[in-house]
Amino acid sequence: MFSVEKIIRIDMTDLKTKVEKVPDKYKEMGGRWLTSSIINDEVDPTCHPLGPNNKLVFAPGIVTGTSAPSSGRLSVGGKSPLTGGIKEANAGTPFSQMLAKLDVKAIILEGKPKDDKYWVIKVDKNGVSFEPADNYLGKGLHEAYPLAFKKYGKKVGIAGVGVSGEMLMTNAGICFNDIDNRPSRYAGRGGLGAVMGSKGVKFIVLDDKGTQAVKLKDRDLFNKGRKTLTTALQTNDGTKPGGMLNALGTAALVNVINEAGGLPTRNFREGRFEGAAAISGEAIAEAVKKRGGAGMTGHPCHPGCVIGCSNVYPKEDGTEHVSCIEYESTWAFGANCGIDNLDDIAEMIWQCNDYGIDTIEAGGAMAVAMEGGLASFGDGKKAIELMKEIKKGTLLGRALGCGAETIGKLLGVIRIPGVKGQNMPAYDPRAIKGIGITYATSPMGADHTAGYTIGAEVLGMAGPMDPLDTDKGGLAKMLQDSTAFIDATGYCNFVTFATGDPDAFDALLQTCNGVQGTSWTLEDVGRIGGEIIDIERSFNKAAGFTKADDRLPEFMKYEKLPPHNNVFDVSDEDLDKVHG
Amino acid sequence: MFSVEKIIRIDMTDLKTKVEKVPDKYKEMGGRWLTSSIINDEVDPTCHPLGPNNKLVFAPGIVTGTSAPSSGRLSVGGKSPLTGGIKEANAGTPFSQMLAKLDVKAIILEGKPKDDKYWVIKVDKNGVSFEPADNYLGKGLHEAYPLAFKKYGKKVGIAGVGVSGEMLMTNAGICFNDIDNRPSRYAGRGGLGAVMGSKGVKFIVLDDKGTQAVKLKDRDLFNKGRKTLTTALQTNDGTKPGGMLNALGTAALVNVINEAGGLPTRNFREGRFEGAAAISGEAIAEAVKKRGGAGMTGHPCHPGCVIGCSNVYPKEDGTEHVSCIEYESTWAFGANCGIDNLDDIAEMIWQCNDYGIDTIEAGGAMAVAMEGGLASFGDGKKAIELMKEIKKGTLLGRALGCGAETIGKLLGVIRIPGVKGQNMPAYDPRAIKGIGITYATSPMGADHTAGYTIGAEVLGMAGPMDPLDTDKGGLAKMLQDSTAFIDATGYCNFVTFATGDPDAFDALLQTCNGVQGTSWTLEDVGRIGGEIIDIERSFNKAAGFTKADDRLPEFMKYEKLPPHNNVFDVSDEDLDKVHG
Repeated sequence: MFSVEKIIRIDMTDLKTKVEKVPDKYKEMGGRWLTSSIINDEVDPTCHPLGPNNKLVFAPGIVTGTSAPSSGRLSVGGKSPLTGGIKEANAGTPFSQMLAKLDVKAIILEGKPKDDKYWVIKVDKNGVSFEPADNYLGKGLHEAYPLAFKKYGKKVGIAGVGVSGEMLMTNAGICFNDIDNRPSRYAGRGGLGAVMGSKGVKFIVLDDKGTQAVKLKDRDLFNKGRKTLTTALQTNDGTKPGGMLNALGTAALVNVINEAGGLPTRNFREGRFEGAAAISGEAIAEAVKKRGGAGMTGHPCHPGCVIGCSNVYPKEDGTEHVSCIEYESTWAFGANCGIDNLDDIAEMIWQCNDYGIDTIEAGGAMAVAMEGGLASFGDGKKAIELMKEIKKGTLLGRALGCGAETIGKLLGVIRIPGVKGQNMPAYDPRAIKGIGITYATSPMGADHTAGYTIGAEVLGMAGPMDPLDTDKGGLAKMLQDSTAFIDATGYCNFVTFATGDPDAFDALLQTCNGVQGTSWTLEDVGRIGGEIIDIERSFNKAAGFTKADDRLPEFMKYEKLPPHNNVFDVSDEDLDKVHG
Repeated sequence: MFSVEKIIRIDMTDLKTKVEKVPDKYKEMGGRWLTSSIINDEVDPTCHPLGPNNKLVFAPGIVTGTSAPSSGRLSVGGKSPLTGGIKEANAGTPFSQMLAKLDVKAIILEGKPKDDKYWVIKVDKNGVSFEPADNYLGKGLHEAYPLAFKKYGKKVGIAGVGVSGEMLMTNAGICFNDIDNRPSRYAGRGGLGAVMGSKGVKFIVLDDKGTQAVKLKDRDLFNKGRKTLTTALQTNDGTKPGGMLNALGTAALVNVINEAGGLPTRNFREGRFEGAAAISGEAIAEAVKKRGGAGMTGHPCHPGCVIGCSNVYPKEDGTEHVSCIEYESTWAFGANCGIDNLDDIAEMIWQCNDYGIDTIEAGGAMAVAMEGGLASFGDGKKAIELMKEIKKGTLLGRALGCGAETIGKLLGVIRIPGVKGQNMPAYDPRAIKGIGITYATSPMGADHTAGYTIGAEVLGMAGPMDPLDTDKGGLAKMLQDSTAFIDATGYCNFVTFATGDPDAFDALLQTCNGVQGTSWTLEDVGRIGGEIIDIERSFNKAAGFTKADDRLPEFMKYEKLPPHNNVFDVSDEDLDKVHG
């Protein structure tokens, strides 16, 4: 039964599975394009995100499961309990490639168990089966993942939720194994882990034994594209072996954004952190070198990634502490909390991985908690203690696990730097205006990956550009559309470092066309990306979103950000023009 | 300077006061009409409700401060931190009459202090002055009010916020003194106490010494209307001396609504409470009679009220426990929490009065907390202990003090019976459909007083009507409009028991016309009421509200309510037609 492309639909109300033929309209879709389409087609936008009528969709990208470089992304979609709108969160993980090899275009979880039972869903080439998840409940994922790998074998892939998902915390992410089976790759943002938890699903275990590589409609075209794109990635300064991302990881940005005055510090009070160097990519690489042992940089998140921007951060004695310290995570628990100690930061990232929550929102919640008086800015030890409450499920832990807006409301904090209920990532929009346009207008809430203007605004990837220039609606729109397309393909966003070169972008399209038999050109990228954004905005509109939701928090309009002392001054009218 | 009608504008940023002439467009307005107009004219609908750009407006009704019967209502308006929309909450209190006698059409609080200081604003015929409020901070209002009356004299009127307002909890109400100077009359709903707290205002103290009665444009007309209306109220079965409201208070409804299967029980799981009789108006009256001492029924909330629906509930030894046990409060802490002990209920109402929070939302929050496992339904002693956390300002207390939706989100509770973030009052819309239409479509969020269909649906005040009939959009609209008008006049909503008689309604209009020199007829009621609703909906629309916000919570569409086992089945289309 599992020999053609299919959609697996699982109703958790009664553990009923249907294997469905892929409808024609979804044939060319993958990743975010598919998850957002299914959610928009099937889910009542006004439903409760954690009630029986929400759905959760897992979909590999179009080229995922092939030998295309750095293409192991998996999209997860649903109505977000954090934003109240549609959400796509994606992760790089071997799980995505296994799902593709099982010829599964999408898994749709729907319904809701009538009791509080949790389940493991097992999918292999023979079909779908269910087992009670009791053995894994209440445990940290660093304990639960090894138990599951012991039971199901080291070669399976596992998607799971932590205690935060079991407790329906709105910052619960969905965890995936990395190449070494760590519980460390996250479809983190927007609380989709709570949706998975609400459906009584603890783990989805994939076993791709006996499956074959993803079928290609035009192998020659695919291979041509693959080679060109691989070469482009391997020669680009950002993505090549030993290049910026490979050598220093994403945290290479810390010093750069700090220099630009846009590194949000102490809950977005300032744009420059005096401890930036100590939490930077350079500091991580130095610790890895100096401490040796398990530490490493250049770690790939899935097989076939030619960039390898991840890392394993070692403890002082060389044993493994955590994988991985991303730019966003070192900022979230570092600059944003005023903490300049990488070991403390590593510990909190480990805690996030253990409890199953998104680091960006968790760091944002911690910074707001500090603003509200629960700890002093800079007190890493206290912050680590507070984080432990999440696992205990105390009200404080639940508040931290529900994100910045919730804990801020509880503590009477006005300075909550979120959009649509989702905390901003590591770029202050008062210092870098274009990213603020993306934050405001993305259907996802504040999300840098939804339209990453930083490459153009700060890294100069499109020639000289003033970060303080406000006329960037076009840039934000173009990047939101093209990112939505990339999120459909299964490629990592970082391939766009190289695809500024038209030949490399053409090669990327050749791999898609080679897999699907399509004949997409550059024009289709804008068309498809725009369509994805339109679908998402249409869902959000029906869910009750308006222009008023496409705004940055009010305080950024009147509170100046040092050192440049700017406010966010992109006009409402300009924000409303972005998506036309 | 205080001899003509004026607006007092106080900027709390620098304690600057301006006394302004009433603009022509506001000349005929009072109460809710005026508060909603000023908020809509002056406040950016997208501002943070607790930030510097929200405003808080206090306005007595059109006939308030005259000898018109039962007309001592005061409206407070602002952007609500609970709903995110415009809010008018009103209370019956001598404070309203003093403000009117001071010729103050409205007090507008704006700005925000740069530090955390709290102030007492004193208003008398000579003007406005400020004193530090340090002496009252952190104390229960049962301690703070007497301290303030000791300082300012027994004849002043005091509006204040409790610790909940100081801590910006989104269920903080604004407290007013009753006729015996108890801190017991509340403009409770929607968290306006947090707005007052955010402006650094602890108390507003009014001294009307040396002022005269409110001036009348046509004394004869006024007196004619006053007499007819007074007679109507004194002969109507609901409002006459010894009648339903006077003898049993609003809690007379407990047995009636329970019988109708619409008394929300254990967080809206059921529509009938086995302990209803024990928490009813009859039980309150019996306790007052049996225990004697300080207990009383038929207590008026302001001088000149001819109905007297309030009460003073005694402890077993006859000493005063609390004033007042309303229908909504005995339900909120009673049936909705599964508690059938009036003394426990009285204690929690006392706690609400002490901490400065709204009983409806507080009871709703407690019921949701019970649903989430913090206490068992029915455990009054545990509930009282939990309530104490609010005063302590612990995170649990803050969660309870922020209302049902916030604590429900923290605890992963799906069954949160609110609209626009505000918890439903004591009528389940699955058993009484018309009130559900009001809940859904009122700009205020779930609010029975916004368009009280119960009189027609259950009490038969407009002839036989089936509570389960869904065709009540017209009724809900008519009542929302006419209520908005009543809220402008300063009359208590309960005058409508008598104004079903056209002569009595005409008399009510005569009192308004007598005060203002207008010549309003019945047609103006719909016009003015409709205008008020339009103003409020316009603000809400600009704040980001859509049709999706004019809905009951999803669970009421699929979860049947015993004993009638109905869902809420008024169609979305019918809800959208209500306001045209």
